[in-house]
Amino acid sequence: MKTIAIHASKTYDIHIDRGLLGHTGQTVSAVLKPCKLCIITDSTVAKLYGSQVSKSLSEAGFDIHQFVFEPGEGSKTLATIEAILEYLAEKEFTRSDALAALGGGIPGDVAGFAAASFLRGIPFIQIPTTFLAAVDSSVGGKTGVNLKAGKNLAGAFWQPSLVLCDCQAFSTLSHDTFLDGVAEAIKYGVIFDRSLFDLLAANSSNLFTAAHTDDPHSILADIVAQCVSSKRDIVMADERDTGVRQLLNFGHTIGHAIETCSSYKITHGHAVAIGMKIVSKASSVLGFCSSDCAQQLEKLLIAFGFSLDCPFSAEDLTHIALRDKKRTGDTITLVVPETIGHCNLMPLPVNQLVDFIQAGL
Amino acid sequence: MKTIAIHASKTYDIHIDRGLLGHTGQTVSAVLKPCKLCIITDSTVAKLYGSQVSKSLSEAGFDIHQFVFEPGEGSKTLATIEAILEYLAEKEFTRSDALAALGGGIPGDVAGFAAASFLRGIPFIQIPTTFLAAVDSSVGGKTGVNLKAGKNLAGAFWQPSLVLCDCQAFSTLSHDTFLDGVAEAIKYGVIFDRSLFDLLAANSSNLFTAAHTDDPHSILADIVAQCVSSKRDIVMADERDTGVRQLLNFGHTIGHAIETCSSYKITHGHAVAIGMKIVSKASSVLGFCSSDCAQQLEKLLIAFGFSLDCPFSAEDLTHIALRDKKRTGDTITLVVPETIGHCNLMPLPVNQLVDFIQAGL
Repeated sequence: MKTIAIHASKTYDIHIDRGLLGHTGQTVSAVLKPCKLCIITDSTVAKLYGSQVSKSLSEAGFDIHQFVFEPGEGSKTLATIEAILEYLAEKEFTRSDALAALGGGIPGDVAGFAAASFLRGIPFIQIPTTFLAAVDSSVGGKTGVNLKAGKNLAGAFWQPSLVLCDCQAFSTLSHDTFLDGVAEAIKYGVIFDRSLFDLLAANSSNLFTAAHTDDPHSILADIVAQCVSSKRDIVMADERDTGVRQLLNFGHTIGHAIETCSSYKITHGHAVAIGMKIVSKASSVLGFCSSDCAQQLEKLLIAFGFSLDCPFSAEDLTHIALRDKKRTGDTITLVVPETIGHCNLMPLPVNQLVDFIQAGL
Repeated sequence: MKTIAIHASKTYDIHIDRGLLGHTGQTVSAVLKPCKLCIITDSTVAKLYGSQVSKSLSEAGFDIHQFVFEPGEGSKTLATIEAILEYLAEKEFTRSDALAALGGGIPGDVAGFAAASFLRGIPFIQIPTTFLAAVDSSVGGKTGVNLKAGKNLAGAFWQPSLVLCDCQAFSTLSHDTFLDGVAEAIKYGVIFDRSLFDLLAANSSNLFTAAHTDDPHSILADIVAQCVSSKRDIVMADERDTGVRQLLNFGHTIGHAIETCSSYKITHGHAVAIGMKIVSKASSVLGFCSSDCAQQLEKLLIAFGFSLDCPFSAEDLTHIALRDKKRTGDTITLVVPETIGHCNLMPLPVNQLVDFIQAGL
């Protein structure tokens, strides 16, 4: 088992291994005393892993409740948060009780925001079961829901007490859902880690297969650990996203706009892949990076099977992107690559955004 | 002008004086750069002070927006939060923009939670116009809304950047609304400050009148400053309410239950007054304080004109109180007086709560 410790406003461990779900109760017992624990998950994940996780937690002495919502971004709303909070109040949850996010990025973001808001904050743990949640969203304390106006516009910074990542769970992901995580892993490679980028490039044809074998030495755990290690360094340097953490936004300002424009039919990683391609192509055209850098990224995305065509105009994307969290006043901060393994923050006047996006389409 | 500085997770000043509203823009300029500023208020306060505050802020260079909701606890819901967040997104507010809570405790709690949640947190300022908001709720960073299950069950700790308290605004309060603040001021006297309790006792017949005179040396500013100074010490010692800050809950666990049982027809201060009376009477009956202590408190509440009859049974109040934030697992922490000026935290097994309340009715 790999364990990575995060020291942010809260100190917590991320455990990464195959087969961890069966020992959930034992692992959680190390950080939480016996209490009421509400598993927040979607109906797909509930069917796959709900019983196993509940059983393990019950055997370890936790009083288990479960709140299940429909899968998909359509559930990532304040209405779901309200339903969860009323459920917890009805069940008389107190500040010494806790939530467990079981599933992908959506249960993680929703459960985290519910935990941040119930009684002004109770503990929660993250049990990511998707590659995307494992490499990115379960770590670092960003929680939230979508507004009609755009993605992740409401939320809180609220750190989990534990992240428990069972790589065996990736075997039940569809190819498309697996790719959502691949896009985030590639993002870490482009921002910080040339060696990770090369590792992904060397395994573009067999990574999905690796998720479906019983190989205990699968490279997936290594990739998760490399991504999470990068994220640890960033979160510890800038927990509240006012500086260097914004690098993790590479491809995301435009990616979020693509998700919103598509009414979330284009899922997060696929949208981020298109967003990264647009930003790197624009950066190459405008001279911020070499054309070779942009081409290497595009080549790797295509090798993994991403479709990089953007069905929306620069104007449509700009309209949504101007509500992004990375805007301050009349400036929006974009993340642009310099080389593979190194990106920079670039403040751009908002009235130049449409031309920038146009250059990358 | 009196200025009290709070050094919590954020450092900010509380300014207390008569006539401050007319200089809002100038005062806010000291802590916020020109930006979009959305005034969050209710329709009663908007009519009284909306134009004055907007004008002053506009003249200081702020781009002013206003979100107005219906007065009363019925607006203190997640639905109102959602409407505010969508409004801010539509107006393209960013993390460098801010909110201003103008009014009593409800606009303060609602605006604070909206500020905590929009883009995972933007700045806000508090402009309390009621005695209750001035002496208590505008300071210390507790924000939130009610759930169907009970009062203030959803929210965040989120500190304001400034509190601007114009005591002249108390002249537009009804007697009942003024009393809401008196109950909280008495609370500070009982918990920490015998001299404040005596000052209130000496002025029980003329305090409301003082709010309606133009006397620049009215004792109201002194009372606000004494309450806020006590709160400063508490918030700086225990911002997140895990220890000594719970003393501020005196009368509140039962008070919140009374509010909830009455569907908020009994307002906060009036409910807290009944709650304080029940707790102190029960404490006297059960031997935690002298009967003299309980009688002095009851006498002062009656002198101010509070009705102390509780229209709900111990069973009904217990049912709601068990969802209170001050419960952890099977224990609920009550605040019980020892003498006027000194209270203690008393953990009570939840199954003894009904008998405790019964003893105080």
